[in-house]
Amino acid sequence: MDMGLSGSYDRENIFAKMVRGEFNCHKVYEDEYVLSFMDAFPQARGHVLVVPKVEARNILDIAPDDLANLITRVQKIAKGVTKALSPDGISLFQFSGAAGGQSVFHIHFHIVPRVEGALLKGHGTFDAANTDELAQLAKEIGAAIE
Amino acid sequence: MDMGLSGSYDRENIFAKMVRGEFNCHKVYEDEYVLSFMDAFPQARGHVLVVPKVEARNILDIAPDDLANLITRVQKIAKGVTKALSPDGISLFQFSGAAGGQSVFHIHFHIVPRVEGALLKGHGTFDAANTDELAQLAKEIGAAIE
Repeated sequence: MDMGLSGSYDRENIFAKMVRGEFNCHKVYEDEYVLSFMDAFPQARGHVLVVPKVEARNILDIAPDDLANLITRVQKIAKGVTKALSPDGISLFQFSGAAGGQSVFHIHFHIVPRVEGALLKGHGTFDAANTDELAQLAKEIGAAIE
Repeated sequence: MDMGLSGSYDRENIFAKMVRGEFNCHKVYEDEYVLSFMDAFPQARGHVLVVPKVEARNILDIAPDDLANLITRVQKIAKGVTKALSPDGISLFQFSGAAGGQSVFHIHFHIVPRVEGALLKGHGTFDAANTDELAQLAKEIGAAIE
């Protein structure tokens, strides 16, 4: 598989399967434009991903209008994360290409709630989160989204 | 100064001064919505910042339409960075609140070109870049933006 910036879109990636309902996730939010769910390998408690429903690989190939719809949902969900978890800060990440930090080749934004003094865990370098805790967080954050 | 998520906007921040033309920067791009310039403390060669002209502190208080205009410019400039520098990947960062990684309290996106195998320098933990090199990079990237 081409993991660079310019490869073609592969419809069998796991986020595309989640969007199509072929793979389960701890859903936080869904509308006509995006699906949002808990990162199964969170860098911090409450780490959420936001994925557009359109098929796009990264920041270079998504249509500008689709990107605009995506970021306004990222904002809406970041507000929900803030309301639910009262973090001290929020870090947004968007990684394009394996060298940029991307591991699933369907464009997505990370919303990572930050707590003063707590370092981030490296992405994918640690164990999967407890699924009961992820389900509970998904419910709490989802309920806080306006 | 309040460095959390919910402080008020301070018009004397350095990015606001750059937008108003009161402080110099190595300008990459400017239009009615954004100003983009080289990060003076780059985490990697070609690290660019994109700042909206509206006065907003972070991801929580910027108006959705302004955020949409900002991200489409981030994309346009990321394409220019890619064309000019041919990185292996691109990392976008948006930090809200000091605990989220924010050090200037005017919302901005980081566009960081990534090279296979090269770790990022910590932000603000290293020396300022050579200004001649920043000026040259600003010219090259600016010329590659379509």
